[in-house]
Amino acid sequence: MPIIHENKILRIEAEKSEIPWLIIFTQKPYKEMSHVPLEVRQEIYALLDKIEREMLAYYKPEKINICSFGNYLPIVHWHIMARFKEDSFFPESMWGIKQREGNLSLPSYEFFCKSLVKKL
Amino acid sequence: MPIIHENKILRIEAEKSEIPWLIIFTQKPYKEMSHVPLEVRQEIYALLDKIEREMLAYYKPEKINICSFGNYLPIVHWHIMARFKEDSFFPESMWGIKQREGNLSLPSYEFFCKSLVKKL
Repeated sequence: MPIIHENKILRIEAEKSEIPWLIIFTQKPYKEMSHVPLEVRQEIYALLDKIEREMLAYYKPEKINICSFGNYLPIVHWHIMARFKEDSFFPESMWGIKQREGNLSLPSYEFFCKSLVKKL
Repeated sequence: MPIIHENKILRIEAEKSEIPWLIIFTQKPYKEMSHVPLEVRQEIYALLDKIEREMLAYYKPEKINICSFGNYLPIVHWHIMARFKEDSFFPESMWGIKQREGNLSLPSYEFFCKSLVKKL
């Protein structure tokens, strides 16, 4: 997945999907969020907040979904996704049962990512 | 679901499940996390951190899962779950495809909840 932004402690990757979907990784691997130093956790939460606000303003989605699972890849990473009534899985999670053939017509993801990065 | 703890701004409910699963709700309804006042968001994150540490110490799970979706119930609430290799869905999310008939033998959830609440 392409890295759209990174610094010494975090990086943001853009997931390839029908929906706007970014993933925040810590640069150092930690298994659980409580293993992550406080200042890094605060940086993750601040970033999730910024991304959410930008996604809401740009895409006007039905709902934002945020999660940190790591069952397949046990290093801390946070997914943030803009969800739409017409996407293939809504109201199920993006790992749930497919509800329909999604046919979204959204503004440019590339433009969104570039604009977001400028504001970080 | 039974409320195990509440104050003016948050409450914690215990989900009935084969796994240890708590849900944090804000007392006032907000649709998205970025609509929640900063001090309440900080309280949610602090609570997730405390619960995670207690779950790790008490249950020694394979992984902690944390998420805020709200696609069915569009008011901010955070799930925190202790996951085990032998639970019915691991490594899928608890909303994913069932992998097996889980047959967990875990220490008392009631005791865990009572001990947790004393530490809040």
